[in-house]
Amino acid sequence: MKKLLPVIALFCISLGLSAQDEKVDLEMVKKIRQEGLNNSKVMDIAFNLTDVSGPRLQGSPGFMRAANYAKGKLTEWGLTDAKLEPWGEFGKGWELEKSYLAMTAPYYRPLIAYPKTWTAGTKGKLKEAEIFLIDETDTTALENYKGKLKDKIILLYKSDKITPSFKADASRYTDEELEKMANDAPQTRSQPDTAFRSMMAAMRRSTLLSTKTKEMAKKEGALALLSMSNRGKDGTLFVSGGGSYKASDPENLLDIMLAAEDYLSLCRLAKAGIPVKMEIDVKTKFYTQDLQGYNVVAEIKGTDPALKDEVVMLGAHLDSWQSSTGATDNAAGSSVMLEAVRILKTLNIQPRRTIRIGLWSAEEQGLHGSRNYVKNHFTDPTTKKSNAEGDKVAAYFNIDNGTGKVRGIYLQGNEACRPIFTKWFEPFHDLGAKTVTIRNTGGTDHLAFVGVGIPGFQFIQDEIEYSTRTHHTNMDSYDHLQGDDLKQVATIVASFVYNAAMRDEKLPRKK
Amino acid sequence: MKKLLPVIALFCISLGLSAQDEKVDLEMVKKIRQEGLNNSKVMDIAFNLTDVSGPRLQGSPGFMRAANYAKGKLTEWGLTDAKLEPWGEFGKGWELEKSYLAMTAPYYRPLIAYPKTWTAGTKGKLKEAEIFLIDETDTTALENYKGKLKDKIILLYKSDKITPSFKADASRYTDEELEKMANDAPQTRSQPDTAFRSMMAAMRRSTLLSTKTKEMAKKEGALALLSMSNRGKDGTLFVSGGGSYKASDPENLLDIMLAAEDYLSLCRLAKAGIPVKMEIDVKTKFYTQDLQGYNVVAEIKGTDPALKDEVVMLGAHLDSWQSSTGATDNAAGSSVMLEAVRILKTLNIQPRRTIRIGLWSAEEQGLHGSRNYVKNHFTDPTTKKSNAEGDKVAAYFNIDNGTGKVRGIYLQGNEACRPIFTKWFEPFHDLGAKTVTIRNTGGTDHLAFVGVGIPGFQFIQDEIEYSTRTHHTNMDSYDHLQGDDLKQVATIVASFVYNAAMRDEKLPRKK
Repeated sequence: MKKLLPVIALFCISLGLSAQDEKVDLEMVKKIRQEGLNNSKVMDIAFNLTDVSGPRLQGSPGFMRAANYAKGKLTEWGLTDAKLEPWGEFGKGWELEKSYLAMTAPYYRPLIAYPKTWTAGTKGKLKEAEIFLIDETDTTALENYKGKLKDKIILLYKSDKITPSFKADASRYTDEELEKMANDAPQTRSQPDTAFRSMMAAMRRSTLLSTKTKEMAKKEGALALLSMSNRGKDGTLFVSGGGSYKASDPENLLDIMLAAEDYLSLCRLAKAGIPVKMEIDVKTKFYTQDLQGYNVVAEIKGTDPALKDEVVMLGAHLDSWQSSTGATDNAAGSSVMLEAVRILKTLNIQPRRTIRIGLWSAEEQGLHGSRNYVKNHFTDPTTKKSNAEGDKVAAYFNIDNGTGKVRGIYLQGNEACRPIFTKWFEPFHDLGAKTVTIRNTGGTDHLAFVGVGIPGFQFIQDEIEYSTRTHHTNMDSYDHLQGDDLKQVATIVASFVYNAAMRDEKLPRKK
Repeated sequence: MKKLLPVIALFCISLGLSAQDEKVDLEMVKKIRQEGLNNSKVMDIAFNLTDVSGPRLQGSPGFMRAANYAKGKLTEWGLTDAKLEPWGEFGKGWELEKSYLAMTAPYYRPLIAYPKTWTAGTKGKLKEAEIFLIDETDTTALENYKGKLKDKIILLYKSDKITPSFKADASRYTDEELEKMANDAPQTRSQPDTAFRSMMAAMRRSTLLSTKTKEMAKKEGALALLSMSNRGKDGTLFVSGGGSYKASDPENLLDIMLAAEDYLSLCRLAKAGIPVKMEIDVKTKFYTQDLQGYNVVAEIKGTDPALKDEVVMLGAHLDSWQSSTGATDNAAGSSVMLEAVRILKTLNIQPRRTIRIGLWSAEEQGLHGSRNYVKNHFTDPTTKKSNAEGDKVAAYFNIDNGTGKVRGIYLQGNEACRPIFTKWFEPFHDLGAKTVTIRNTGGTDHLAFVGVGIPGFQFIQDEIEYSTRTHHTNMDSYDHLQGDDLKQVATIVASFVYNAAMRDEKLPRKK
């Protein structure tokens, strides 16, 4: 595969597209670096989005605090028309108002636990609530438990093993890994192997069993369902949603996620026939007054009469899950995007095209904020019908891969952008960023743009502890942000956005 | 240093001591391996000492449950005179009966927190309790806060950084490390370098500041003091004692240890001038009826008329700290020692010397159980006066370095035992155990024996996640035990104990 690069280079040259032809205003890049690396506000912004705002679940007061903070800052920095823009109906908001869970028999043991979002509370403190163990692996056997679940705390038996970490939690891309990504061919897409398929099948069976158990528990009037954090350990829990946010749906049963160590201990005790009791006091609040979703948007107006109606967008989702303050997912991205426009405004740039920031909502529930924004402003993804602004988007840049610094960019199959980005990265080689890969990356808001043909991109970022400790966990807090990395990200994003706003042509679209 | 080995070997040969001369009953070792590796009960024992008994703080009901379980099992297996033997006055027992702590303003946030042992509770639920920040680094400045601490939750400002783990939490000894240990010279003791000394000085200053603040907080009627887990992260807390257990001392102020992420977030909010409020409900119970400490002891009687009054001891401390169930510290060691005597009884061995197991108490507060046992039975460490049994101890073997398998043994400077242990390890080379090092290791109960001249030893064990995740943490639970490792440990300990009980001479004492 290493031989591909010269071939691609040759191909680009034959089309007249080469990194050499792409013009970059190095004086401006120097200023952006100076402001971004030496006068950064990114960690102060992140502090406000995390510690000060709290969890930013879609529709929660924490989200609104953060959104209003962002709007305020964008206005203060001199951006135009900063606002919270509604994008349509999302559903109910939700907030945790109290969470206490402990084992009280056979002895007192505090438990690390977080209610899943959009599940109900306990309506007061439950004392001496009994654990009811369901020790089955298939759904048909659930019939045996019919009529037994009322007023019980339901525990599905698991015998998982927690293994010690002989591999470090944190990592950065090696030169070899980056080189491999740079040399990837477009068609590279590996088929899942047998082991992976069988793991996925086991996961589906386990999920089905949980779902069926939960349905039965709710129907029979159980008090709560306990869930186990499958991937976390050492006090780190992965926890997200557990109930419906649709306005018309009733409140779901309390579904509360326990640290793996605590969950497995309860299982062992219950399986050994030792009566296990708990004290639970969970209060959750549903917000039903305003069912709209809101994105935060603001602009730096374009100044070139011929190009100012065209728009370069940068964005990240502002919403988070609930068990921490969503620092790496995605206060990091939001802070970087805010910092990037702060840098550009501080430098008083006069962009040819309009630059527009979008901080999206309800990403965690299916990219709703960005998808609806694209639908409302640019192109309906179903009908593919574009409105007036639809063809005027020059590019969209997204950050949502944690706190690690930028090592490169995913082309999302848009080969024509390779020489452009290659050139744009040249002033940042010393900061570790240069890889341009043909690969796709998924799971976040750039897909809303890419899906309607807009050149949308997400950067390659160092992993740090994203998969192991922070992504969707109770540990996704400010202290897990890496300030020096985020400064680098904001600087590079500001530079890319500036370049996209200044070049003669919009970024090429995929054929 | 590698040249030392041949010299030592020569020296041993000249004394008539060589590994070749040491006799090992390989048939019996084979049986011990069979029982220990293929029919192990060590994890079942560990389950009973951890999940079933709960935290085993000295003097707590959890300790007594575990001690009585051990006594019951020792009796059931046919050991002689299994009992809880009082060793003198320790002080008050303590137990956690409720622990709830959350931030309620500026928004609701559950906190991961554990009261330090022997501190008082809150006498009911405290709602809307205000955080009071003390942002100082030296004790003289504390004067400025005089008269301001009543009814406040005291928070000492810290600006620590949490760094990602680019090094794995878990490790095993490499061959190179073991070889280096084997070749160490007796006098090897490195002096702490400047960086270490300066770190220690900073720690002492920080501890002094905490102590002074706590004294002042208590005097003025503060509600509680918050502490930060300096070494833990990701939900792992290192937490131990915070109050006096002396019968005559009053209850200390509630001192509650928070996860580093939570503590630092409170500090940032308070320092930014944002009012932080908390809800706390902590109930602790002091046990004052029985102030005695108890060790669990039992014997397999010796059968050789000439040697049966001599005793080979094996032991481990049974007590733990409180925030989890003390699995690696030291249910692991206790389970291994119980399993070792179970193996030996199952094989119906007829040892020449008496074998005695001791499961110690109050190790965490200063090796009190083992020190007093040694004083009561063998030799007074102050007067050095021995009683009748004092010179009859052939050896003492201890396990208290976590869940990792045995890789060798520390000679504690007793060079004469090198050829003996070298021979004893021969049947276990395939299990990764062979290193004999002249080094000392400290911090646990073998020191009580070594201190009065008894040949006392602790094994070299693989680290696994002892320092990073389990030792004195809220994560020291059953799931962090490694079953295969513990089987190996029990098998090797049983074999060593058997060898020591059968050889013609007691193990040589240090000159």
